[in-house]
Amino acid sequence: MIANTPKPPYYAVIFTTERTTIDEGYAEMAQQMLELAQQQHGFLGEESARDGLGITVSYWESLEAIQNWKNNAQHLQAQKLGKEKWYKKYKLRVARVERDAEF
Amino acid sequence: MIANTPKPPYYAVIFTTERTTIDEGYAEMAQQMLELAQQQHGFLGEESARDGLGITVSYWESLEAIQNWKNNAQHLQAQKLGKEKWYKKYKLRVARVERDAEF
Repeated sequence: MIANTPKPPYYAVIFTTERTTIDEGYAEMAQQMLELAQQQHGFLGEESARDGLGITVSYWESLEAIQNWKNNAQHLQAQKLGKEKWYKKYKLRVARVERDAEF
Repeated sequence: MIANTPKPPYYAVIFTTERTTIDEGYAEMAQQMLELAQQQHGFLGEESARDGLGITVSYWESLEAIQNWKNNAQHLQAQKLGKEKWYKKYKLRVARVERDAEF
């Protein structure tokens, strides 16, 4: 689903990933982290797709909200497992959304 | 492939789409537009994934480069066909990448 974000400005975290072949626990953790993110203050929405490359974009009210999510204890544990097991490679970009358009 | 972008700041165009059931011409046009984008001044890279929802993120040196790409004649024609045939719904966000991290 396309995220129903408010009028800019707000922030986007673009998380692009290449997976390992290890599936154990991955889908459950991804779902858990989505639900946990949705409960965070300042969370605005999320969009996700994978076909080989995975792209997850989450939207946030402020850099502070992103920083808090980054340091969330359960999320830190998931990040650690991600590097150990599920991700071969990733890149994360924090960006300020300045304008949008839709159809 | 994860795009090998330079040190921030630079810009991202996050293009999130829901497709119609019309496939005619779509894959060819998507490939053509990728190749054309790669030839534009200020283009830095592109990441794309679809599983139902499609997310394409292109990276650019400047807002001016994005504006030029938006107004490129062949791209304008593709945008028109996109609305007529291939996209049920889309959202496009222009964002300034402020920091990144990778693993």
